[in-house]
Amino acid sequence: MSYGRTFPLWRDAAGDSWHAYTRHAFVEGLRDGTLPRAAYLGYLVQDYLFLVHFSRAWALAVTKAETLEEMRACAATVHALLDEEMRLHVETCAAEGIPEATLFSTREAPQNIAYTRYVLDAGHAGDFLDLMAALAPCVLGYGEIGTRLAAEAGETPYADWIGTYSGAGYQQTCHEVGRLIDTAMARRIGPDPAQSPRWPGLCARFETATRLEVDFWGMGLSG
Amino acid sequence: MSYGRTFPLWRDAAGDSWHAYTRHAFVEGLRDGTLPRAAYLGYLVQDYLFLVHFSRAWALAVTKAETLEEMRACAATVHALLDEEMRLHVETCAAEGIPEATLFSTREAPQNIAYTRYVLDAGHAGDFLDLMAALAPCVLGYGEIGTRLAAEAGETPYADWIGTYSGAGYQQTCHEVGRLIDTAMARRIGPDPAQSPRWPGLCARFETATRLEVDFWGMGLSG
Amino acid sequence: MSYGRTFPLWRDAAGDSWHAYTRHAFVEGLRDGTLPRAAYLGYLVQDYLFLVHFSRAWALAVTKAETLEEMRACAATVHALLDEEMRLHVETCAAEGIPEATLFSTREAPQNIAYTRYVLDAGHAGDFLDLMAALAPCVLGYGEIGTRLAAEAGETPYADWIGTYSGAGYQQTCHEVGRLIDTAMARRIGPDPAQSPRWPGLCARFETATRLEVDFWGMGLSG
Amino acid sequence: MSYGRTFPLWRDAAGDSWHAYTRHAFVEGLRDGTLPRAAYLGYLVQDYLFLVHFSRAWALAVTKAETLEEMRACAATVHALLDEEMRLHVETCAAEGIPEATLFSTREAPQNIAYTRYVLDAGHAGDFLDLMAALAPCVLGYGEIGTRLAAEAGETPYADWIGTYSGAGYQQTCHEVGRLIDTAMARRIGPDPAQSPRWPGLCARFETATRLEVDFWGMGLSG
Repeated sequence: MSYGRTFPLWRDAAGDSWHAYTRHAFVEGLRDGTLPRAAYLGYLVQDYLFLVHFSRAWALAVTKAETLEEMRACAATVHALLDEEMRLHVETCAAEGIPEATLFSTREAPQNIAYTRYVLDAGHAGDFLDLMAALAPCVLGYGEIGTRLAAEAGETPYADWIGTYSGAGYQQTCHEVGRLIDTAMARRIGPDPAQSPRWPGLCARFETATRLEVDFWGMGLSG
Repeated sequence: MSYGRTFPLWRDAAGDSWHAYTRHAFVEGLRDGTLPRAAYLGYLVQDYLFLVHFSRAWALAVTKAETLEEMRACAATVHALLDEEMRLHVETCAAEGIPEATLFSTREAPQNIAYTRYVLDAGHAGDFLDLMAALAPCVLGYGEIGTRLAAEAGETPYADWIGTYSGAGYQQTCHEVGRLIDTAMARRIGPDPAQSPRWPGLCARFETATRLEVDFWGMGLSG
Repeated sequence: MSYGRTFPLWRDAAGDSWHAYTRHAFVEGLRDGTLPRAAYLGYLVQDYLFLVHFSRAWALAVTKAETLEEMRACAATVHALLDEEMRLHVETCAAEGIPEATLFSTREAPQNIAYTRYVLDAGHAGDFLDLMAALAPCVLGYGEIGTRLAAEAGETPYADWIGTYSGAGYQQTCHEVGRLIDTAMARRIGPDPAQSPRWPGLCARFETATRLEVDFWGMGLSG
Repeated sequence: MSYGRTFPLWRDAAGDSWHAYTRHAFVEGLRDGTLPRAAYLGYLVQDYLFLVHFSRAWALAVTKAETLEEMRACAATVHALLDEEMRLHVETCAAEGIPEATLFSTREAPQNIAYTRYVLDAGHAGDFLDLMAALAPCVLGYGEIGTRLAAEAGETPYADWIGTYSGAGYQQTCHEVGRLIDTAMARRIGPDPAQSPRWPGLCARFETATRLEVDFWGMGLSG
């Protein structure tokens, strides 16, 4: 998936880290169904907490936007996360007897803290673009993984996860976020961002967030 | 209107400032229709810009919330501001030949800068309660003014303004914000906030924001 | 005074606002001694509060710096403001019987709130450069005013004010801040910032802060 | 060491985590000299980066302070970190042929990211107290460890590390930070903080930061 012009460039610049993230053993276990149920549930609980802080990061983006379009796009993502994406987590966990209050009060794994707080700090330390570069690997990586798994997966108990991220709703979010990033880059840096002195720093933000995604899958596997 | 338990206490503590705000000549001009149209339009353009930054402040509240209920309530307010309350401004101005792009690019009046940035800084400097105390005068004061004007106003060209803020949708927002504040206070300070060392500081936040509202009306009158 | 390459460009872009700020009647009153003592003291009390929040803005810059040199330069400015520049205010006011605790607890004028909170929000909304553009008019403008007044002033009771801002210590701070800005611009935008899409936005930050300086002098005069 | 009234309460509430941190195998290796040199140097490089972001967190505290005393105490800590504590790291690494530029550009370990960004987010999400509770385990824990090791250590190549943290300068910082926290608690919560609804949340901040310290030592050992 391309999701715009900037994302493929960031993805290429992330090199092996991107592959390590999107082809992680956890992902392949979702695809072929070999992922242990306990690992999946442990991941889902942590991912619920991840979404709480990821929503905070998208809300931070509203405060750092420069146009009404940027504000509305970020506010819509906060809404999508808090009111839609979390539903998969809440419903799946409820079916396993884990109520939402338990999800919210679970202790965050250090890999979860590292990733979410890194994203939030990227926003506080820098501008809207720094925040977008740190947000992109999760949003768009899940879209890419979901699309591939929907095409490649056979029978797997994790079809609902794959369906969520390959589904039209989530894919539309990815395309909108890709456009949001492209427009924000053009507005602040110009037509050729890769020539800007900021480019290496933005690529580094993206790659660091990607490596923290790898650690997050690792937590899920070992969990 | 009471809008919960905390608001009436803050309002009383604000003393004359509250009266100066809610009974301002600008407000009375809306009620009896004597407010010059040019003053109203000038106010509406500035208030549009106000809502841009006020939305940013509610988005900041999402990042400072401690529970999912707080997060969702604040995110819903961002949505209500960006997608609903601004509509009055956009439609009224459009009818006068002022497009939304003009609204967005208008120079902010210093009274507008003072108020909105004070609220944002209250959030950055303090916690969720400091931010709520600075947000409350605008949200709940407009609800109080709208309700009174709906009861007292005769023929006035500003019936649409009065209808917006006295309407069921806006009043429901006020009741929800009142509850949000009460719950947030109990969660962080306990059952008797007025006995807390934080109480004078929170009252001062509320009163300063109220005085900045008075200046905002003054800006509207002087056009 | 040039204080580096960026500052003269921002100053030129601010047009009449810069003149309105640096040649304000309040400034001329400092120069020729016609400024009423009460106005000066009223200004000094508000300026003390201004420095409190201005120090907070420079501390915010430490959190948004990208190099150790940037961090150290901003931290040194926090120190200079909190421990040196404020001394003029504290000592002058003490000589008039106004203790420091009174300074700290004085009600901020709305012009003071507008300016300081605008600068802080420039930092939170944007990156290090946005914050620098909002900080520059005060730091460097006072350096420019101090230098001119030291050359032009005759007998005036405000020689201590003029001495503070024309003095070697303050002028060195100005030169260092000018270099800090130039280096930060080159690092993030490249060798020709005026060609960047960010340039108009940075100039707008500088000019808005300059206009808020004009209002601050106005407050001092009418004080 | 007690370092005031609040710290011992937080330390007790952290239970086993505090012991796991202050009696970590890395610490005992410093004491008896069995810590491999390579592990020590790897730790020192990461700790240098830690101090960069820890300085940012203390600068954030300046922006969230409510009194001039709080502002000055936090600004002094920024200065102590940037200009004094880092010197041990720079000098020791220089003696091993590692220049400061290499330190600054080293990739941060995930345990480093987790800890520093957690502290910064504690400040952004909450108020001054939330930030203090997240800052305390590092500042005061190192003071406690340094004091114990100075009393217990025999011959060890890490005497300079022990000397830094047991030395009068660092111990004075600890006592000042302890007083800063006590005063800040009294100012915002009152004479009996442990009865406040905020108490469990502040203890949780302290304990999470303590656990992230344990992970940091673990990184040092395995590094």
